[in-house]
Amino acid sequence: MAKSLPRSPLAPAVFPDLPEIGGLRFAATAAGVRYQGRTDVMLAVMDPGTSVAGVFTRSATRSAPVLDCQAKLGSNPEHGAAILVNSGNSNAFTGHYGQTSVAEITSAVAATTGLPQDRVFTASTGVIGEPLPHERILTKLDELNGALSGSAIKDAAEAIMTTDTFPKGAATTITIDGKPVQIAGIAKGSGMIAPDMATMLVYIFTDAAYDQDKLQALLSAQNETSFNCITVDSDTSTSDSLMLCATGASGVDATDNAAFGEALREVMLDLAHQVVRDGEGATKFVEIQITGAANDAEAKVHGLAIANSPLVKTAIAGEDPNWGRVVMAIGKSGAQADRDRLSISFGDVLVAEKGWVAPSYKEDLGAAEMKKDDITLKVDLGIGTGVATVWTCDLTHQYITINADYRS
Amino acid sequence: MAKSLPRSPLAPAVFPDLPEIGGLRFAATAAGVRYQGRTDVMLAVMDPGTSVAGVFTRSATRSAPVLDCQAKLGSNPEHGAAILVNSGNSNAFTGHYGQTSVAEITSAVAATTGLPQDRVFTASTGVIGEPLPHERILTKLDELNGALSGSAIKDAAEAIMTTDTFPKGAATTITIDGKPVQIAGIAKGSGMIAPDMATMLVYIFTDAAYDQDKLQALLSAQNETSFNCITVDSDTSTSDSLMLCATGASGVDATDNAAFGEALREVMLDLAHQVVRDGEGATKFVEIQITGAANDAEAKVHGLAIANSPLVKTAIAGEDPNWGRVVMAIGKSGAQADRDRLSISFGDVLVAEKGWVAPSYKEDLGAAEMKKDDITLKVDLGIGTGVATVWTCDLTHQYITINADYRS
Repeated sequence: MAKSLPRSPLAPAVFPDLPEIGGLRFAATAAGVRYQGRTDVMLAVMDPGTSVAGVFTRSATRSAPVLDCQAKLGSNPEHGAAILVNSGNSNAFTGHYGQTSVAEITSAVAATTGLPQDRVFTASTGVIGEPLPHERILTKLDELNGALSGSAIKDAAEAIMTTDTFPKGAATTITIDGKPVQIAGIAKGSGMIAPDMATMLVYIFTDAAYDQDKLQALLSAQNETSFNCITVDSDTSTSDSLMLCATGASGVDATDNAAFGEALREVMLDLAHQVVRDGEGATKFVEIQITGAANDAEAKVHGLAIANSPLVKTAIAGEDPNWGRVVMAIGKSGAQADRDRLSISFGDVLVAEKGWVAPSYKEDLGAAEMKKDDITLKVDLGIGTGVATVWTCDLTHQYITINADYRS
Repeated sequence: MAKSLPRSPLAPAVFPDLPEIGGLRFAATAAGVRYQGRTDVMLAVMDPGTSVAGVFTRSATRSAPVLDCQAKLGSNPEHGAAILVNSGNSNAFTGHYGQTSVAEITSAVAATTGLPQDRVFTASTGVIGEPLPHERILTKLDELNGALSGSAIKDAAEAIMTTDTFPKGAATTITIDGKPVQIAGIAKGSGMIAPDMATMLVYIFTDAAYDQDKLQALLSAQNETSFNCITVDSDTSTSDSLMLCATGASGVDATDNAAFGEALREVMLDLAHQVVRDGEGATKFVEIQITGAANDAEAKVHGLAIANSPLVKTAIAGEDPNWGRVVMAIGKSGAQADRDRLSISFGDVLVAEKGWVAPSYKEDLGAAEMKKDDITLKVDLGIGTGVATVWTCDLTHQYITINADYRS
């Protein structure tokens, strides 16, 4: 963890140019929670009238900040809201001490920003099981509050990184009723990524107005086919948090607007894909398209079984078109499959069909597909109309190197 | 695959001295199915009156030999039985060609040995999705039949190896009604090991007599807490097969004998542990003891979640007492847990209790436990009386090296 990792070969060339969102300001600072020589705390403050929605890990051992955020969802949006996030320490499995830290931080942020405490949300990410030195954060609150700026979103994205090798941001602009509406988000995450229940740390903001209850429903639905369809290593964080805040500063009410939902999905998928592209040790970005399953839920089970299989992931790392391992993963998934109706393609190359290798398949065609940085695996179960798409990365020596020595 | 792997550092010093089992003879030969310069086919032939039981993978993409064996369970034991196994090619996902190969082999073995075809069982292990060149096996049947010997069990254990770095055998002798009864078994397996449904290739023999239906029930029950409680990499084979054959040559009927059941369990656990000790790239043998879960099934879910977590397995590889990752795995398992009732020990060192690090815990105590070759992780959920023990190994660079280049 202490050592600096090389930037992922799958990283985007540059951090995108994110728009300012009316009614929203950021600040970041170096509090020395665990890391030295970098920022590790970010504060976001939103104007009165901001709707806040969130989706969180369902881990049975979820962290104190997650439990606190969940309790506060639905609190009154009249008063605005704040989000404070630290990296370096997850404040997870820290007993009653963990709850005390959250209470101290949210109380102090409320006092500093003038917000009610039930509109102050926090998250902590980093090592599990060590007490959070929250005093280091408290002493920085006045500085953070004084530095709040509408243009500091990249600083915020950098402050929440842990083993990430690049900061993650995405944005889009749409027009509703002739007026522009902005959506921008940031994310962190590269390991312990299998958000079958929720996600890593993701914060998305819009200047649209949006009914808070309906915003929650929208976010939960979109999450199922974006963040809940990625996996790096099948391990699920105790701190996963996804929040969406709608300030209303644009003067446009986007509640139930279909185009807004689509635009939000675009930003969520962009961030989700960036998390996979920063998967620990990743050298390949893999999209797995499942069709013909008994139903959508079973399609996702098949997709995640393939995406989480160490043998599939190491074959991809070795650029080996080893479709036998894909067959194995489908077979073990527990979802319905018929060996003799399966067909499998790597990119546009049909590899196997009707229970055996396709007559047209040649090993060099499959091998050429596997040499690409971005690989698409297509599986048709031949049973029904269920579909799902999931995204993952390969499993390489660098994953072992990073994780066999994280705490040292 | 072609390259020879170094012997696992966790391997037993020597292959055990296995007893001859009355009514049972073996032979092995090199048929060149895929490998050169080594044996790759074994034949076992048992006398009339042998009861045969089997447990097989429930993979939805299981192989033609597995489907054939399952169809033959329960056939008449009066006629004896034969088992033929080849390594190098799993005859899985080979369409109708695969069924033809099985029919050709079982028909020819029946003709050669004088057994009915429904008492000839086969298995194939190795690469998936390539046609089995069964003619190479057929031409060796007369040689195998002529070489059958009561003392060739080690030859059989060697012939069924694939990525195994050592042959696996185990045996025990018990006395029933004043007479000695022998149990001896062999196994192969080191990767694609997560027999949540069945197991790898295991063949166990006894000279006890045993009612065939009750033998099947005994084997299925014992399997649940032995082979079904090990995992190397969470991936489940399309060929997993466990068979138990009781020749009756001792003249002792062991049906429903409790001591026999215990002795059988001992042999099964010994073989299961050897498979874990030969886990691809393994440098640590890990026993995970779960207590205090809501019930036994939930205890096993927790145990396997820990055992299959890449982050737990890489921490063990790095000799890092990273109990936070154990908490994470418990949290994601889906089984019931209460963060504040959990306690975790490494060996006899209490690490965490009541939702936080134990007051007595010191990092150097945990670190010393992690330096051992054999590591015990104990988790008490503090909820109920459910217990389970599972076994696994660590996840190392060598696993990546072996599996990123298997087919090349």
